[in-house]
Amino acid sequence: MDAIHAFEHLPHKTIERLSQYRRALLICLEEGKSHIFSHEIARIQHITPVQVRRDLMLIGYSGTLRKGYNIEQLIELIGEIIDSEEMIKVAVMGLGDLGHAILNYFNGKRSKLSIVAGFDVNPKKIGTVFNGVPCYPVEQIQEIINRENISIGIITVPAKQAPVTAGRLIKAGIKGILNYTPTPIQVPEDVYLEEYDMITTLEKLAFYVKLANDKNKL
Amino acid sequence: MDAIHAFEHLPHKTIERLSQYRRALLICLEEGKSHIFSHEIARIQHITPVQVRRDLMLIGYSGTLRKGYNIEQLIELIGEIIDSEEMIKVAVMGLGDLGHAILNYFNGKRSKLSIVAGFDVNPKKIGTVFNGVPCYPVEQIQEIINRENISIGIITVPAKQAPVTAGRLIKAGIKGILNYTPTPIQVPEDVYLEEYDMITTLEKLAFYVKLANDKNKL
Repeated sequence: MDAIHAFEHLPHKTIERLSQYRRALLICLEEGKSHIFSHEIARIQHITPVQVRRDLMLIGYSGTLRKGYNIEQLIELIGEIIDSEEMIKVAVMGLGDLGHAILNYFNGKRSKLSIVAGFDVNPKKIGTVFNGVPCYPVEQIQEIINRENISIGIITVPAKQAPVTAGRLIKAGIKGILNYTPTPIQVPEDVYLEEYDMITTLEKLAFYVKLANDKNKL
Repeated sequence: MDAIHAFEHLPHKTIERLSQYRRALLICLEEGKSHIFSHEIARIQHITPVQVRRDLMLIGYSGTLRKGYNIEQLIELIGEIIDSEEMIKVAVMGLGDLGHAILNYFNGKRSKLSIVAGFDVNPKKIGTVFNGVPCYPVEQIQEIINRENISIGIITVPAKQAPVTAGRLIKAGIKGILNYTPTPIQVPEDVYLEEYDMITTLEKLAFYVKLANDKNKL
């Protein structure tokens, strides 16, 4: 418990990068490596070695000059910081293509995070089980979230339904929301919100591609 | 062309937010609004009014004290900056659930961005058309990318295939890559890369939910 509170003020970006470092480290471990240098992690993640060293200093870890960081130790330490002791349970709101992609992609990947319920309005989907995850009618949201002790909801419903869906999750007592629709939603202060919209990312990418094209024309 | 180069040095985050402002403004326009204040945009986007005003000053736009920003004018100006004059064409690598979700979600949404090709290795998918987008065998990537003048590739293949797929896109002359797999990829300097991984976002969310839970226990 003390360890957790010591890391409460880590920058949001550091939390993100710790998750990314761990994933890269797990791949390195699979490949039979035992140690890694900051510049190697930096290259994989497209950031500077200084950034890597700063993040790892923030969590109190340092490597040796000669061999770098011990991969196994570092994976374990990152887990102690970002993983929960208890399982964190997740619900997916909307089992369309994106909802299915998330279920496919996720389950079994993280021992301390588990998708345990899906919700949809389509009667053909309700009552089915996809990748081990049952699909419930959206009217049962309060009941299922309480019964399963679900604390995170992922929203993949059609854009216009996003605010209503968020409202239902909040009313049911959810603590974190990941909104994958392009409609921004509003949450109370005690609910943690992450929003990601593919169109924004693609428009940004298109902007830089356009700049590069224009430069080539000069 | 001059306008484009004047905006070349806009911060990456400003480009992202301009795309987000535009989407929010389009919704407001649909709802019959003609003007909007910076604090209203800020509330929708979960940022400060100062941030909104700073971004809009960077693109040389200012509202009036009494009525705020003219929504139609602002949408047009943002389009001039972030959209390309010519259509930017996009290919989706891997037509699984996530690939399908992207095709469903996107087409018709932006007049200057269009997904024109999908690629897969599954013989059952090759030759089919999904949401107006034909699926080609991955061996034809060079031919199709040249013929259709595709400049952006979205990678939604299984994680282990990501680096090979990226290599193919780069060899075929793509200028921008959006990597949705959890495997980080490497690109040359003249290729613009965006990576997004759902697990990182969910782990970050779980971290903050855990902190909140622990606080409630105290």
